[in-house]
Amino acid sequence: MNFFLSELADKLGCELQGEDRRITGCNTLEQAGPWEISFLANPKYVGQLDSTRAGAVVLSPEYKDRFDVCLLTPNPYLDFARIMRLFAEEEEEEAPGISEHAFIHPEAEIEDNVIIHPFVSIGARTVVCAGSIIHSGASLGRDCRIGRDCRLHPNVCLSPATELGDRVTLHAGVVLGSDGFGFAQSETGLEKVPQMGRVVLKSDVEIGANSTVDRGTLGETRIGQGTKIDNQVQIGHNVSIGRNSIIVAQVGIAGSATVGENVVLAGQVGVGGHLTIGSGARVGAKSGIHRSIKPGAELSGYPPMEHREFLRYAGMRSRLPDMYYRLKRLEAECDKLRAQLESKETRNEPQE
Amino acid sequence: MNFFLSELADKLGCELQGEDRRITGCNTLEQAGPWEISFLANPKYVGQLDSTRAGAVVLSPEYKDRFDVCLLTPNPYLDFARIMRLFAEEEEEEAPGISEHAFIHPEAEIEDNVIIHPFVSIGARTVVCAGSIIHSGASLGRDCRIGRDCRLHPNVCLSPATELGDRVTLHAGVVLGSDGFGFAQSETGLEKVPQMGRVVLKSDVEIGANSTVDRGTLGETRIGQGTKIDNQVQIGHNVSIGRNSIIVAQVGIAGSATVGENVVLAGQVGVGGHLTIGSGARVGAKSGIHRSIKPGAELSGYPPMEHREFLRYAGMRSRLPDMYYRLKRLEAECDKLRAQLESKETRNEPQE
Amino acid sequence: MNFFLSELADKLGCELQGEDRRITGCNTLEQAGPWEISFLANPKYVGQLDSTRAGAVVLSPEYKDRFDVCLLTPNPYLDFARIMRLFAEEEEEEAPGISEHAFIHPEAEIEDNVIIHPFVSIGARTVVCAGSIIHSGASLGRDCRIGRDCRLHPNVCLSPATELGDRVTLHAGVVLGSDGFGFAQSETGLEKVPQMGRVVLKSDVEIGANSTVDRGTLGETRIGQGTKIDNQVQIGHNVSIGRNSIIVAQVGIAGSATVGENVVLAGQVGVGGHLTIGSGARVGAKSGIHRSIKPGAELSGYPPMEHREFLRYAGMRSRLPDMYYRLKRLEAECDKLRAQLESKETRNEPQE
Repeated sequence: MNFFLSELADKLGCELQGEDRRITGCNTLEQAGPWEISFLANPKYVGQLDSTRAGAVVLSPEYKDRFDVCLLTPNPYLDFARIMRLFAEEEEEEAPGISEHAFIHPEAEIEDNVIIHPFVSIGARTVVCAGSIIHSGASLGRDCRIGRDCRLHPNVCLSPATELGDRVTLHAGVVLGSDGFGFAQSETGLEKVPQMGRVVLKSDVEIGANSTVDRGTLGETRIGQGTKIDNQVQIGHNVSIGRNSIIVAQVGIAGSATVGENVVLAGQVGVGGHLTIGSGARVGAKSGIHRSIKPGAELSGYPPMEHREFLRYAGMRSRLPDMYYRLKRLEAECDKLRAQLESKETRNEPQE
Repeated sequence: MNFFLSELADKLGCELQGEDRRITGCNTLEQAGPWEISFLANPKYVGQLDSTRAGAVVLSPEYKDRFDVCLLTPNPYLDFARIMRLFAEEEEEEAPGISEHAFIHPEAEIEDNVIIHPFVSIGARTVVCAGSIIHSGASLGRDCRIGRDCRLHPNVCLSPATELGDRVTLHAGVVLGSDGFGFAQSETGLEKVPQMGRVVLKSDVEIGANSTVDRGTLGETRIGQGTKIDNQVQIGHNVSIGRNSIIVAQVGIAGSATVGENVVLAGQVGVGGHLTIGSGARVGAKSGIHRSIKPGAELSGYPPMEHREFLRYAGMRSRLPDMYYRLKRLEAECDKLRAQLESKETRNEPQE
Repeated sequence: MNFFLSELADKLGCELQGEDRRITGCNTLEQAGPWEISFLANPKYVGQLDSTRAGAVVLSPEYKDRFDVCLLTPNPYLDFARIMRLFAEEEEEEAPGISEHAFIHPEAEIEDNVIIHPFVSIGARTVVCAGSIIHSGASLGRDCRIGRDCRLHPNVCLSPATELGDRVTLHAGVVLGSDGFGFAQSETGLEKVPQMGRVVLKSDVEIGANSTVDRGTLGETRIGQGTKIDNQVQIGHNVSIGRNSIIVAQVGIAGSATVGENVVLAGQVGVGGHLTIGSGARVGAKSGIHRSIKPGAELSGYPPMEHREFLRYAGMRSRLPDMYYRLKRLEAECDKLRAQLESKETRNEPQE
């Protein structure tokens, strides 16, 4: 598969500078060859323009004098991503069809133009809409709904009544609708609280490999449109996440927490149950959130502090032991001064 | 499915207050309609009794004047959970049977009244006892034993010789019996220590989605009766956990650690290898345990402190930078005072 | 299966002390019976030699007087591991063959002496070399290459074009080649950056259950020969890890990080994107690495400090609140002293 630069410029609405040529793939500045296109997004790497062998570079107009053949755009990262997608789509083309090695319940409803791989199991009354692809070993319980153009990678598991919007991507090993962690103390031990709700994902949600989303205890666990979740993230029962939020790998969100829109939770963050994370909040890696957070807050640490305060504190930690000994010395010093002063007073008093 | 309130009161041994009526489901106070039953467990939500549309509420006798139709019980959360179970059981009824798309080794032994879904693989000499359900894609190695009324969700994986008691629940993607992480340093690199032991789960254990439990290197990794483990928990080789403990999501327990009874490890806790966590200990979220813990201890942080001490320390962290500068200023001040005092002494001395 | 001690001594190049006898298995000092062999690696357990019922013990020559029948070697842990392997290999023998319940694409190439279990799915042009075993439910995309004597446990998932060297072990639920977490901000929300690269694992790599390794965005995510990765580890896109490194459970490494040779990352560590961890570095459990680390560094904490500094600091944390109040008191004290001194000066001055 290949494109002329002029074709790419047309499709993306970019300006082509330099001679038109045929491009066969995408690569980094360091590794691209003369038939590949690359990009410059971070000014830190501008020096690589001198040494790259790339046939063309997507870059911002301010660097147009630094390379001969380029596509000019104010957002080179976004436009390069779109070029990558053009190549990726070409590469992936697969004929629609349902493997004879899949198990489809007779009451399931599979629309046209769907691809179902071997060893997929689909329960009663589940609907898979047109254009969706379900990879091998995925297990869809009864009464699920998979929107249009979804992609479920191998071994994904959906509990009964899970609902996905359109263009949802679930990577391998994702589990939607596992039971929430709810137990009531009885005289004889812990008794399970039955988990009867479900999971609802809006359109354009993407969830990374081996992440898990518990079903609501009652009602729903909900993830809003366009929210992106990385690998090995855990989302508890009845959590609600707004639109376009970003949840990085290995984050855990406890039951009944509410996360707003455009929130960013960095890697390995933990969020306690029943809390609210306001829209636009940004939480630093490894933080532990144990109280609700206001919209737009930037916090880090556990318990969390203002991100700047966290950095100041963190930079001082190593001085703590030394401070302790200096403090002790100072106390002794003060005692000595006081004693000296008092003895002096005593000695001086008779003179007065 | 539905129940009369009087039926529920009978089954649970609660007192019915107000008129009997037919109930068709369970819901929260906020969302329940007139044919649903709800509950009040946390006094914080008592105000919702005024606005709820629920047809009946399970509550503690002290609030009996706050709502007309109710089931009275000293433990509303537990009794509501039991009502939920009545509804859930009705909903789930499935005909027993073994899918023709499953692979059962001819030497495996499947008792009556078992449900086995498509693409399940069961090894030689493995026994599945009556009433158990094994969902699609689960893989059971040779010589395993699955007790009565167990439930294995999709894509669960059991290594050879794994043993489950009765009423064990394994959520989707759980792996029991993966190799422990053991390597010996040789002249040429790391050499694998073969992992030859197995995993034993007692009755009423529940393990959350995508959690992993390593087999013993030699001997067993054991989880005691009634212990509940959340999603994405990692349990190392030869770990032993007592009865009725609670291990929250994303906890990691390193090899050969011993965890007592009724222990609570909150989310994202890490426990080092070969340590002992005494019965009844409670460890706060995100803590790192690097020494053995006494029974009943309440610890937080890494390294851990008494939970109260942790909170006091945590609240002071942001003052550390300021303290540093105040300490420095004070040192200078003391130096000045000392100098002043000494110069005074000198000046005064001749007068004496 | 069983071995004479003299056979084991021959195979391992150890010295046999005491009478030769037949050994039927391996066990710990505590649990071994008279037909089993055990080992002493940690001097802490030397007392157990007095009570063990083991038929023989592998130990270092310095303890040869402490037990009658033993295999003497300078590295008892390594040699015991090798004895375990002899027993383990005997136990595992399985006839080669391809299950009729597997799906092998007609263009895939399966060499001789391979074992493929039920419900395995293998894509077009994928090559599985001699001696490899693929357990049930594994899903191998198109154009993969599995080297010789690899072992893929149940439900492993390999994206297209994944490449494994020889003797690679992937435990159950491992996902190689999931999409990296890359999104570009557009006017309307987050737009996916297509992930077009792949994952390459060199020989003798082992990866624990439910771990995930993202494919390169462009180019490769690479793991070097002999590196061992524990359960539930997350490796981002375009990460490169050198030889013989050890990555303990629940570690997360963000995209484009470079990890050297012989690095040890303890449990639950997080490593930020685009950083370099120098060869031989050791990072303590739960640390968060947000800057590149020099070769051989030993760090702990988040942000990380020298490991010793971390311990000193950690030991002082609980004094912080008390220090704050002592500092305040000292400031007041100093003020008082100053006032006293000044008033004294004033009173004395006229005398001069």
